[in-house]
Amino acid sequence: MALTPARTMPGVLELLPLDQIAFQRMLDVIRRNYERFGFLAVETPVIEYADVLLTKTGGETERQVYFVQSTGALEQGEKPDLALRFDLTVPLARYVAEHERDLNFPFRRYQMQKVYRGERAQRGRFREFYQCDIDVIGKDALSVRYDAEIPAVIYSVFRELDIGPFTIQLNNRKLMRGYFESLGVVDGEQQMLVLREVDKLDKRGADYVRDTLTGDAFGLSAEVAAKILAFVQVRSTSLQDALDKLDALGPGPEALEQGRTELKEVLGLIHAFGVPDTHYALNLSIARGLDYYTGTVYETTLNDHPQIGSICSGGRYENLAGQYTKSHLPGVGISIGLTRLYWQLRDAGLIDTAKSTVDVLVTQMNEAQLPAYLALAGELRGAGIATEVVLEGGKLGKQFKYADRAGIRFVVVLGEDEIARGVVTVKDLRREDQFEVARSELVKTLRVELEQAAAMG
Amino acid sequence: MALTPARTMPGVLELLPLDQIAFQRMLDVIRRNYERFGFLAVETPVIEYADVLLTKTGGETERQVYFVQSTGALEQGEKPDLALRFDLTVPLARYVAEHERDLNFPFRRYQMQKVYRGERAQRGRFREFYQCDIDVIGKDALSVRYDAEIPAVIYSVFRELDIGPFTIQLNNRKLMRGYFESLGVVDGEQQMLVLREVDKLDKRGADYVRDTLTGDAFGLSAEVAAKILAFVQVRSTSLQDALDKLDALGPGPEALEQGRTELKEVLGLIHAFGVPDTHYALNLSIARGLDYYTGTVYETTLNDHPQIGSICSGGRYENLAGQYTKSHLPGVGISIGLTRLYWQLRDAGLIDTAKSTVDVLVTQMNEAQLPAYLALAGELRGAGIATEVVLEGGKLGKQFKYADRAGIRFVVVLGEDEIARGVVTVKDLRREDQFEVARSELVKTLRVELEQAAAMG
Repeated sequence: MALTPARTMPGVLELLPLDQIAFQRMLDVIRRNYERFGFLAVETPVIEYADVLLTKTGGETERQVYFVQSTGALEQGEKPDLALRFDLTVPLARYVAEHERDLNFPFRRYQMQKVYRGERAQRGRFREFYQCDIDVIGKDALSVRYDAEIPAVIYSVFRELDIGPFTIQLNNRKLMRGYFESLGVVDGEQQMLVLREVDKLDKRGADYVRDTLTGDAFGLSAEVAAKILAFVQVRSTSLQDALDKLDALGPGPEALEQGRTELKEVLGLIHAFGVPDTHYALNLSIARGLDYYTGTVYETTLNDHPQIGSICSGGRYENLAGQYTKSHLPGVGISIGLTRLYWQLRDAGLIDTAKSTVDVLVTQMNEAQLPAYLALAGELRGAGIATEVVLEGGKLGKQFKYADRAGIRFVVVLGEDEIARGVVTVKDLRREDQFEVARSELVKTLRVELEQAAAMG
Repeated sequence: MALTPARTMPGVLELLPLDQIAFQRMLDVIRRNYERFGFLAVETPVIEYADVLLTKTGGETERQVYFVQSTGALEQGEKPDLALRFDLTVPLARYVAEHERDLNFPFRRYQMQKVYRGERAQRGRFREFYQCDIDVIGKDALSVRYDAEIPAVIYSVFRELDIGPFTIQLNNRKLMRGYFESLGVVDGEQQMLVLREVDKLDKRGADYVRDTLTGDAFGLSAEVAAKILAFVQVRSTSLQDALDKLDALGPGPEALEQGRTELKEVLGLIHAFGVPDTHYALNLSIARGLDYYTGTVYETTLNDHPQIGSICSGGRYENLAGQYTKSHLPGVGISIGLTRLYWQLRDAGLIDTAKSTVDVLVTQMNEAQLPAYLALAGELRGAGIATEVVLEGGKLGKQFKYADRAGIRFVVVLGEDEIARGVVTVKDLRREDQFEVARSELVKTLRVELEQAAAMG
């Protein structure tokens, strides 16, 4: 029989076990922090009805959808009515609309699952990737105070992920809209087009952007273009500086005043939530592409790795599920695209292959003593120590080599001599150290060692 | 705009938050036990190339496959070359073949992900469901001792899941094959057909099965049919009884002798692994449908709920990945179909909605004290206590009602009076109790309460 080449499609990140462990630890940290802030777990099916998924979106997103058909439907030549979710926001909207009567509002949910996009195969573009989302959904109304809680969660997550200093950057779409209005750029779509140009500031430089804005396509005056460029370059260096810079914008239309009031309240409350001033800042260039953000918007960047871009983004939206329900459901949320983030961090050398989740390998010196090895392993497992026993046998050197390659730290040796003397020999492969311990003390000793290692990270 | 009805397709299990928490706890228990036995995490993409997925399987499984197409591929009328995995075994085979050089053998992996089958919509049939698998894969060879480790893992998992008494039932395909050969039923396919009839024993009764086996379709003698019926009804009541009953089968062809030797070694070692004799038994009716099992086979049943059927099944196979690689990769493994199991247990009233993952709700008595509430919540979270703060405000009674409905146990009240006296009022909604504690003692007090609750399950 001819062999089928074992391979996966481009755009998926499949990991070797020790990398998978590193990835899993990141997932665990995020989940733990989400739960600590009172968010509740939700999972939704990967496959949704196509008409449910595609009510709102169109254009680019729609072209990237993966459609699904069972063998039967395919044979009958039917048009596919199922598709894979491309984000977690549309499924959240469907979930809240469907289960509205059974949920408690404000509804705080987290969801950490994979989403699918039929992207062109390209380095760093993923067709399957994890999103780790939180959202707070209000019924009819949701206080702007929740907008201040989100950065507290972001801070808590990224502090524990320990991937270097980061800054949570904030803006407010109302403020932005109001400021543009005050300059005579009133149309929403026109504002978005201007913002898209302004987004090129870093790559193309100020001259290019100014020329475009004052050129035929936009026809803005030099003065207006200059004001826009000055506006989007506003960054704060402290909480007080942020408040001052907001005041310095001067009076403006209602939207601007609303946005300013919201931003000031949010900035102040973030402080009350215990986020250090060093970790959040005003950044008036942040718009977020999605049309549905209406107030606060967030991006988070690693201070030492700006090229990675935003590692966690989101914002406030006016109405989550207008396509499914007449209920008015305002919300605020963020998303961490963990697959891409992990890939970028690994690429930048910021995360390493993990140690094994296996703590101890019990070697097999003597086949006849297998019951003794199994009993020992049982005790270790009973104490919560992940333990593997060599069942196959073979040379001791080979068993050590296996432990070393597999990243297992402790190797336990229990030969005739040890058994006679009531002791166990432990080899610590990380410290390249070896010690003997009374058989009855083994569990306690290893627990202490492992707890110390865990505490030191 | 007309509303799109918010709905999911039939055959998926979408849970409300407190049920999701109960489900997640089961996943956590399984994962923790898998890791404790030294199994390593692996995740594979949901989407695989169709030719990779469908090399081996055909017939029924193939008809249940979900095929996947991006919008672009669909528009071009291409035949789909992508599909969703329908189990975790085929992706494991592909993974091991693809990464063989980077893995350490024996390779012990666990994988807990969802799989997809285009089943007919029917109560209790799932189109999307979790499988929680472990497998040990050897390079060239794998000692039969690993077959004894699997029941130790099963025991550990289901003991901790705490869903009532269970029995791990074992058989061996070689023993079965050898016994059938000794009765003149030599052809493998014929053996499978006989087994399929024998499987109807419980539903149709012994007379029906005997009549079928001696009828035109099989043409077996009354004596042979009687022996087959007696064989498949063998159950052991203890380890010694199992060994005795294996001996009582009498001498037979090589396959039978091999099977008997393996079973005896496995049964004895399961004991050495610390599994109580009450929790495993010989059951010579177990065959497992899949053709690729070649030695030990397992099923696990709940003693008090036989109607649920096997909750964890698997076995030994000769060669994992012959369709992808020339390497000889024998293995042994099991799978827990957690979605179906959860659904059945809930249906049988054996599991309940979980308590919330949120431990504490900090109420909002007075808007002006919000910073004090946030500081308090920050402290609680810092101590690992999942805490939600009421940010919206509103009547205190409504806040209590929210906590009650959401399943949050502790409600913290911090009014002007409490602040002045340096105390906090805690209402325990589970015990319907209320107490006052010094502000500085709150974290410690709640930690003790929560640890006690966790210890009591």
